[in-house]
Amino acid sequence: MLKYAMIGGGPGAFVGEVHRTALALNGQAKLVAGCFSRDLEKTRTLGAELGVAEDRLYATPEELSRLEAGDIDFAVVVTSNEAHYPNVKACLENGIHVMCDKPFTHTSAQAEELVELARDRGVFLGVSYTYAGYPMVRQMREMILRGDIGAVRFINCEYPQGWLAEMLETTGHIQAEWRADPVRSGGTLSLGDVGSHIEYLVPHVTGLKVTRLAARLDSLVEGRLLDDNGTILTEYDTGARGMYWYSQAATGMVNGLKIRVFGETGGLEWFQEDPDILHHMPLGESARKIRRGTPDLTPGAMAYSHTPPGHPEGWLLAFANIYTSFCNTLVDGEAVDFPTGEDGVRGVRFMEVCLESSKNDTAWIDMT
Amino acid sequence: MLKYAMIGGGPGAFVGEVHRTALALNGQAKLVAGCFSRDLEKTRTLGAELGVAEDRLYATPEELSRLEAGDIDFAVVVTSNEAHYPNVKACLENGIHVMCDKPFTHTSAQAEELVELARDRGVFLGVSYTYAGYPMVRQMREMILRGDIGAVRFINCEYPQGWLAEMLETTGHIQAEWRADPVRSGGTLSLGDVGSHIEYLVPHVTGLKVTRLAARLDSLVEGRLLDDNGTILTEYDTGARGMYWYSQAATGMVNGLKIRVFGETGGLEWFQEDPDILHHMPLGESARKIRRGTPDLTPGAMAYSHTPPGHPEGWLLAFANIYTSFCNTLVDGEAVDFPTGEDGVRGVRFMEVCLESSKNDTAWIDMT
Amino acid sequence: MLKYAMIGGGPGAFVGEVHRTALALNGQAKLVAGCFSRDLEKTRTLGAELGVAEDRLYATPEELSRLEAGDIDFAVVVTSNEAHYPNVKACLENGIHVMCDKPFTHTSAQAEELVELARDRGVFLGVSYTYAGYPMVRQMREMILRGDIGAVRFINCEYPQGWLAEMLETTGHIQAEWRADPVRSGGTLSLGDVGSHIEYLVPHVTGLKVTRLAARLDSLVEGRLLDDNGTILTEYDTGARGMYWYSQAATGMVNGLKIRVFGETGGLEWFQEDPDILHHMPLGESARKIRRGTPDLTPGAMAYSHTPPGHPEGWLLAFANIYTSFCNTLVDGEAVDFPTGEDGVRGVRFMEVCLESSKNDTAWIDMT
Amino acid sequence: MLKYAMIGGGPGAFVGEVHRTALALNGQAKLVAGCFSRDLEKTRTLGAELGVAEDRLYATPEELSRLEAGDIDFAVVVTSNEAHYPNVKACLENGIHVMCDKPFTHTSAQAEELVELARDRGVFLGVSYTYAGYPMVRQMREMILRGDIGAVRFINCEYPQGWLAEMLETTGHIQAEWRADPVRSGGTLSLGDVGSHIEYLVPHVTGLKVTRLAARLDSLVEGRLLDDNGTILTEYDTGARGMYWYSQAATGMVNGLKIRVFGETGGLEWFQEDPDILHHMPLGESARKIRRGTPDLTPGAMAYSHTPPGHPEGWLLAFANIYTSFCNTLVDGEAVDFPTGEDGVRGVRFMEVCLESSKNDTAWIDMT
Repeated sequence: MLKYAMIGGGPGAFVGEVHRTALALNGQAKLVAGCFSRDLEKTRTLGAELGVAEDRLYATPEELSRLEAGDIDFAVVVTSNEAHYPNVKACLENGIHVMCDKPFTHTSAQAEELVELARDRGVFLGVSYTYAGYPMVRQMREMILRGDIGAVRFINCEYPQGWLAEMLETTGHIQAEWRADPVRSGGTLSLGDVGSHIEYLVPHVTGLKVTRLAARLDSLVEGRLLDDNGTILTEYDTGARGMYWYSQAATGMVNGLKIRVFGETGGLEWFQEDPDILHHMPLGESARKIRRGTPDLTPGAMAYSHTPPGHPEGWLLAFANIYTSFCNTLVDGEAVDFPTGEDGVRGVRFMEVCLESSKNDTAWIDMT
Repeated sequence: MLKYAMIGGGPGAFVGEVHRTALALNGQAKLVAGCFSRDLEKTRTLGAELGVAEDRLYATPEELSRLEAGDIDFAVVVTSNEAHYPNVKACLENGIHVMCDKPFTHTSAQAEELVELARDRGVFLGVSYTYAGYPMVRQMREMILRGDIGAVRFINCEYPQGWLAEMLETTGHIQAEWRADPVRSGGTLSLGDVGSHIEYLVPHVTGLKVTRLAARLDSLVEGRLLDDNGTILTEYDTGARGMYWYSQAATGMVNGLKIRVFGETGGLEWFQEDPDILHHMPLGESARKIRRGTPDLTPGAMAYSHTPPGHPEGWLLAFANIYTSFCNTLVDGEAVDFPTGEDGVRGVRFMEVCLESSKNDTAWIDMT
Repeated sequence: MLKYAMIGGGPGAFVGEVHRTALALNGQAKLVAGCFSRDLEKTRTLGAELGVAEDRLYATPEELSRLEAGDIDFAVVVTSNEAHYPNVKACLENGIHVMCDKPFTHTSAQAEELVELARDRGVFLGVSYTYAGYPMVRQMREMILRGDIGAVRFINCEYPQGWLAEMLETTGHIQAEWRADPVRSGGTLSLGDVGSHIEYLVPHVTGLKVTRLAARLDSLVEGRLLDDNGTILTEYDTGARGMYWYSQAATGMVNGLKIRVFGETGGLEWFQEDPDILHHMPLGESARKIRRGTPDLTPGAMAYSHTPPGHPEGWLLAFANIYTSFCNTLVDGEAVDFPTGEDGVRGVRFMEVCLESSKNDTAWIDMT
Repeated sequence: MLKYAMIGGGPGAFVGEVHRTALALNGQAKLVAGCFSRDLEKTRTLGAELGVAEDRLYATPEELSRLEAGDIDFAVVVTSNEAHYPNVKACLENGIHVMCDKPFTHTSAQAEELVELARDRGVFLGVSYTYAGYPMVRQMREMILRGDIGAVRFINCEYPQGWLAEMLETTGHIQAEWRADPVRSGGTLSLGDVGSHIEYLVPHVTGLKVTRLAARLDSLVEGRLLDDNGTILTEYDTGARGMYWYSQAATGMVNGLKIRVFGETGGLEWFQEDPDILHHMPLGESARKIRRGTPDLTPGAMAYSHTPPGHPEGWLLAFANIYTSFCNTLVDGEAVDFPTGEDGVRGVRFMEVCLESSKNDTAWIDMT
């Protein structure tokens, strides 16, 4: 099993926990070291909870980055955006593979420097653009690659959210505060936060490169200092055209990432809020709903699929919830709400009675 | 952290792996012992993979069940259905808490015996009806409990699947074979496999008890020995009425569990293939889409919610997929397909260019 | 052009107006005679509005039914249900073809008598089950007929409405009052009103005949004298099985007629609230959305299609609404809200400016 | 009843027939004169079919336009686009009210001239932008007007179609041919055909005026001379921003007009392919599905609604289809497929049997 260290992701940090959960699900790597916070006490408290050995909890990322290659296999950097650059750099300089949260760095000069460094030291460097991990995004990519829709002509990709339709940054809302601060965010609010997902997804799925763009960034909410909405016209190396729209001020929208790709012989559409379906519209034929887990899947999409068709992947979390109630019961010695043996008895009896009724020409059976 | 043992769930057993993954996600318990297979070699191989100590891998469930209370906190029983009864019994007799896969036992006499036993020994006994773990099922239950739709009048619950629309049991299909065998399955095919989820879900959500039922079980596929479809009329202790339909021969249906509850002042509908939405239809008003993670959630539903609104819970698995590609790269020393630092560079540059274009009145910027 | 008379459908009668509108749309027949109401004055007022000659407006259906064959081609009977029998009978006895609203008569003896009579006199007798007129219902019928899903095994047809979830019949609500009255309605409330559509649709679409049934009719709303909900188990002449559910007390449901037919090699699903789509689920393949107006349509479905694909058929009514505003403007000499020449100017200018901007590399153009 | 003349709309012309059907549905006006084609014979043949008096069928629009005010109330101009200008002009000069098909004229100078003329002569001039006629578009307009979503901040309006994803204009496809011809179409293909609907809809619904725009028009299909796709950035008089996308080369899209308006306190979304629903997303609350025909409707939306809630407006056309089969039966004297009295008998018997079964505790009843 691989061993990893985490920089950032202290108590209450949402994204750090997501990375740890993803790695737990994945089952290939184990957390063995951490510098979760600038406050060593916080790092120690969380480290204890997570079962990290005390001598592998560090006050600064620099100390952590001096771990030997044998001690850890890779580091996960999930600090606030402005600290990505120095932390990733420290790790790479010490020959440690890195997975960094997105957006990567504040400037492209910094980003290029890190990539150079990784190349020099011969280590791997990743940036966690989550949406590439969806099975049906992989399906879309592989279908386009194998020519299912012919040459791509036009791409419409949008990512509207609505949670910043109010001026949250002045209300003490932590997530809004640093994102909306020109200094800490690196000069963009929503372009960095959600537009960046569009930027990654389109070339990932289509294989095209942007050659030219024109953008209008808007601050729709009065008083906001940075962009909360934007429209971008694009042109690609094949002559294809595109348009992107991102927003965090689209009142009432939740997390509406949608990508539509139109080619010579078909169209494809994927919507993140209904992620198990890829809509395929072949020229001149009825549209098809390609579903995760079914025989129409490409090998890459099949490899990324964890649950049977029709079982949303959150089904695993439903399972986990049952165990949470059960474990809480054991810890507290008092039954919390989970399906019990009594429920099991009732269930078995129900089946027996159904069989009996059915054998008797649908006779009514009393169950009291 | 709690310690658990697993009985069943050997190499290739789907449901055992689901239980282990759910517990990994949950993070409250650690696998410390196992009797995964009747073949000790297989148990040893899998145990090594899962990091279980060699002296905690057993040839028979009986040996495992003799573990001391201090050694494990609970056992998970995920054998084939006919072995649930003896295995659960052995654990309970030795004072071990148990979570058993569903359906529980072959007969209600067996089920009652186990419940009695658990009560005698003062241990907890659970049956893993997954759907109770969905946040919006919890929401439905709590809304009904607090009177949001008034007294319940009618329930329509259906669970159509289509994967047994063909005679798979004679083609060597393992999943179909034991389920369709009158002896191994316990006398029902689809009633036990999917009908049982309806049976659990309706009282769980509504609080009602079935007082009388009439059932017609069908074998729609020619040559099939057991039921693959069924319709059940129900009556409840409050006078409410209901109907259930389950099927595994509904050609083309995937996993269509849907529950609709109609009360005096409103209706509620939940569909498992779109699990983050609960449709609420208040009498005389426009229907509402209540969404996981939003302020309209009840406390129980909120506690069961793992990702932000609009991010399907499978989003965590997308994250895990990224890490799978990354870990495989590290293991093999060869870059597999994951978002790289180069992608990160391109992303940062994209943002810089968007800002520049926007500052220049949406001027086109060359990116080549 | 054919000539028709109408019996019933007086001022304020919803269904009579629907029949007249349908015939206006159809364009094959012209209203030339009427006995719209038991009150001759009302018949005369409405007749004048509708352009019917004064001497063709009658005090009683009997008088009307004595019209000569040359004077009218057929009669439309849209009275309240209890008057269907005598009115249809009078017309048939006088050799007049009849289209009668559904449900047909109070007793099957009456219904059989009328059919016999029509046969004797050699005239045509229709009953207006609307849903047979939907293009995609026709598609479903023709696909099943030509074997697209193999032999039918199971049918699930449901028709839930919610408008009678309250005790409207005692509040002076006219539509509810006669329907809920045991005498005037003929002994059923919702079975006659909505269940009857299921009864017609299933054999129409599948070609199967019900050989045996078991039904439970419910009065879910306290105080109601007749059924407002019902579940019916069916068996068909081929051995296929089915279940029907109808309701007018399903709180919050609107007009949810849905039919699902499962065959050996595929499933089909049609939902009345999304009528232009037929879902086809071929065994082992991705589901298809067959859309009204496209090349996948059967000849019968194509013949029933009035607007281009993707234009819901209500599009014609949107058009009609524009003309309503325009005509009202002409009648009143005062501009009501409709798209004007000024709007047209703005539209043409918009296009000119778009072309200019596009020719100038997406330059911004001032429009003020 | 008003009297109208039609210019254009000859045999086989789709849009002319749509206007006539809309006026038939509307019931306020009667066709009394026509110049349907440049070929008088064709005008005479169609005129006879439509019941227009022979002396009211004209060889040229000019002759028709000399009709006296008392003879007709208004003219409908549905010729090809390039003939709109002279024909509308002729009518207006003779004091005749006009409804003209869209797009209005080739140049805005022409359009302005016609508007001036109408103003001078004191006659009404309309342009038939259909989508303004949808009840839920009216609802959207009235909700925004009364402040339901606060000040509008951003508008996203798109209209993708896919029928021109192939080079149809060189295959003899009549509809494609004239639209794609730079001369006959007036210089744009899809901007005029579908983009024009967006242009009208946005100010109609929001009350905003475009002050500045930047557009990129694309020819996505190789060899095409005009635009088949376009993206337009807009700014409005209140400072609100917007983006439009139209396409006829979006492979697989059918008729995807969608408008989304985001305001300070809520968002609204309407999709033409599901026209009876308006999605309302109030800030911080669960989204609502406002449905045509329900109590949440504004007065204007209610006035435009023709069928009960849940009955798509195409329901009237389903009705009309039944009558078509019936009328064809009468004309041919041979039963075509329509619901017959025999169907009625079976239906009444079904209800009797259901009642009997239900009275006998859901007993099975033989129907053979």
